[in-house]
Amino acid sequence: MSDFFVGQSASMSKQFSQEEVDAFSKMSLDINPIHLDEAYAAKTLFGRRIIHGFLSGSLISAVIGNILPGEGAIYLHQDMDFRKPAYTDDVLTATVTVERINPEKHILYLNTVCTNEKKEVVIEGSAVVKYYPKDK
Amino acid sequence: MSDFFVGQSASMSKQFSQEEVDAFSKMSLDINPIHLDEAYAAKTLFGRRIIHGFLSGSLISAVIGNILPGEGAIYLHQDMDFRKPAYTDDVLTATVTVERINPEKHILYLNTVCTNEKKEVVIEGSAVVKYYPKDK
Repeated sequence: MSDFFVGQSASMSKQFSQEEVDAFSKMSLDINPIHLDEAYAAKTLFGRRIIHGFLSGSLISAVIGNILPGEGAIYLHQDMDFRKPAYTDDVLTATVTVERINPEKHILYLNTVCTNEKKEVVIEGSAVVKYYPKDK
Repeated sequence: MSDFFVGQSASMSKQFSQEEVDAFSKMSLDINPIHLDEAYAAKTLFGRRIIHGFLSGSLISAVIGNILPGEGAIYLHQDMDFRKPAYTDDVLTATVTVERINPEKHILYLNTVCTNEKKEVVIEGSAVVKYYPKDK
């Protein structure tokens, strides 16, 4: 038996700050100037500093870890197409939707998308997650 | 012309601290207790707290953003299979290897793997990255 159903969906929203981008650079060791150096970023096609794809994408992980399926989740797979840059003045919303369920193996196949406040898709992809494992 | 070649490879290593895992939980909003609560984690099949997949995976992004292809990189795609849990006492190494190059479109197709100090694969996947864009 599964408490989940196809089409079930959950979302979380967040605006990342430049302080968080800076902290994530230190943490991840990804110090590409496109995330850190405003003068450098102004000369690129992005026009200004962008958020790391793994930081904006982590909001997808938050929905999976907190809500759908939440506690007991075991992350098996995530893929992400980075469609548009995300900026610190964007309010990002990660939405996770159940596309398929394998109730025998307790596996959810999820559509995962991250949009900005203009409803533009920033990240599009899918995830595979095990839920409520019986085996300790 | 491309400065890159098939088989070219770059790596970075790091040991994440629990303080970084805690900070990443706050930043990403992923507060699943498997990352934060040692007593809770001890009762799961992991036995102890594990690092967020997006935090260990961010080391892949660091290799791409810093080294291969480094400055000017535009991240188009990343997929990750989470093979094994990563812990704060692991020294993780992300290795990125060029599998294919499209020199006309300036695109690298990369194999991306994250291993622990026992050479066990923690994350396996691939990435697609644009390098040195001419436009703008």
